[in-house]
Amino acid sequence: MKVIDNIQRMAMFSKILKKESKTIGFIPTMGYLHDGHLSLIKTAKKHTDVAVVSIFVNPKQFLPGEDLDRYPRDLKRDEEMARLAGGDVLFNPSAEDMYPDGYATYVDVERLSNTLCGNTRPGHFKGVTTVVMKLFDIVKPDIAYFGQKDAQQSIIVKKMVEDLNMDIEIKVLPTVREKDGLAMSSRNIYLSEKERKDALCLNQALNKAEAAVRSGERSAAKIIKIMEGIVKEKSTAKIDYIEAVDIKTLSQVDTVSSGTLLALAVFIGKTRLIDNTILN
Amino acid sequence: MKVIDNIQRMAMFSKILKKESKTIGFIPTMGYLHDGHLSLIKTAKKHTDVAVVSIFVNPKQFLPGEDLDRYPRDLKRDEEMARLAGGDVLFNPSAEDMYPDGYATYVDVERLSNTLCGNTRPGHFKGVTTVVMKLFDIVKPDIAYFGQKDAQQSIIVKKMVEDLNMDIEIKVLPTVREKDGLAMSSRNIYLSEKERKDALCLNQALNKAEAAVRSGERSAAKIIKIMEGIVKEKSTAKIDYIEAVDIKTLSQVDTVSSGTLLALAVFIGKTRLIDNTILN
Repeated sequence: MKVIDNIQRMAMFSKILKKESKTIGFIPTMGYLHDGHLSLIKTAKKHTDVAVVSIFVNPKQFLPGEDLDRYPRDLKRDEEMARLAGGDVLFNPSAEDMYPDGYATYVDVERLSNTLCGNTRPGHFKGVTTVVMKLFDIVKPDIAYFGQKDAQQSIIVKKMVEDLNMDIEIKVLPTVREKDGLAMSSRNIYLSEKERKDALCLNQALNKAEAAVRSGERSAAKIIKIMEGIVKEKSTAKIDYIEAVDIKTLSQVDTVSSGTLLALAVFIGKTRLIDNTILN
Repeated sequence: MKVIDNIQRMAMFSKILKKESKTIGFIPTMGYLHDGHLSLIKTAKKHTDVAVVSIFVNPKQFLPGEDLDRYPRDLKRDEEMARLAGGDVLFNPSAEDMYPDGYATYVDVERLSNTLCGNTRPGHFKGVTTVVMKLFDIVKPDIAYFGQKDAQQSIIVKKMVEDLNMDIEIKVLPTVREKDGLAMSSRNIYLSEKERKDALCLNQALNKAEAAVRSGERSAAKIIKIMEGIVKEKSTAKIDYIEAVDIKTLSQVDTVSSGTLLALAVFIGKTRLIDNTILN
């Protein structure tokens, strides 16, 4: 596996691939890879000639006081895992290379960036769209892969690509879960044994909500109430938000239907976890 | 000359050119072409295989109350002029195609966009960088051409391209002037006979300022005073701003030197005109 830590070399490498009419599949990550990332890499490898995995803990998408400094990092481990999954290139630029002194340009998707996680983490998605735009310009992918766990992120990136007429296909793959249902996340490593058990409440709340919908419940307020009940049973859990929104506009719905996104963010101790499901 | 009025067709046409390893020179304009635009087209034709001229009166860069509705438009005339100058493709998308319902994505270059014209026209450059980003993604140029008359615009576009790692070269060509020194502008057509004479004060103020610098004057305040004096002699002229700024940061300087940008915007009657010079 080729490791590139410099923007210019990555851009040149991709430019040569494009000249050779090779297709590029791109998996942007913050590293500390898990099976969710690996499923994206494996799929990219099936669809395209060259799978590029980026690892960049993007400071612009962390708010002051969040876990930027303690976010888990292990490049050797990531390199090995990405290679075994079929990754061809690992791109890990430095923050100084990505945001040199005097950096000033931001990409913002209005409205969609201000709800759900964007409401409780203001500025987060502006950081995401800015870094994704930079990475797209450097890596020049034909297809970029995102996980359904970060539902809002992929909806916003799709909107950015559409609005700015970028010639890139965005593919969103299903959330990969631990055997007991916890959505895979690099942040799960923060959890104590007790917290790890309590963290199941996110998936359990979604399961209960889906069961209620199957039984005929359509009131968003009642479904959210059910989910709140599940989460509040856990002593280490604190709700950041639980919402039922339209999958396209991300605006709240009163009545759930096919295409409603149920999404929640919960602090388990100090660790903020997210999960979601799309009703069908 | 090929005329394309549809984003998808333009994007496809450029994609095919890139596949054929043709280089693309791009001249984004708001139409009503003049010799300034034509010098950009002629230069693009020298440097690259295919010269693409876009004509799009971008609503996002006009403020409420500005001249969006009366901005001069004449596609037949523009097509003929662009063709004679060597243009290969004229791209004129509709506003509905560029900004469909629900459009939400903006590119903003902070700081540089808030001084000079950005100070008196807040939001203007956000509209410019957003449309230029879209046009770059559609047209896929190797080199894009801008005029020195819009000095701040080209500085901001250069910064955007650099910050976002876009693989596009920005070339800025000298301001083209009428015989009597007035900088060419599509907006000059708004001027009455009397205003057309008064409009010379922009270039005259810059000439006087340069003469003062040649005579040893280095105080920005004194040089601005000299320029103000020239403009205020004209009955139809009203100063929007006159500033001496660093060419890179666009922040005001107290002492002028090589690399200082002298820039001014003046209302001549209802018509807002700009001009500038870089001291050397």
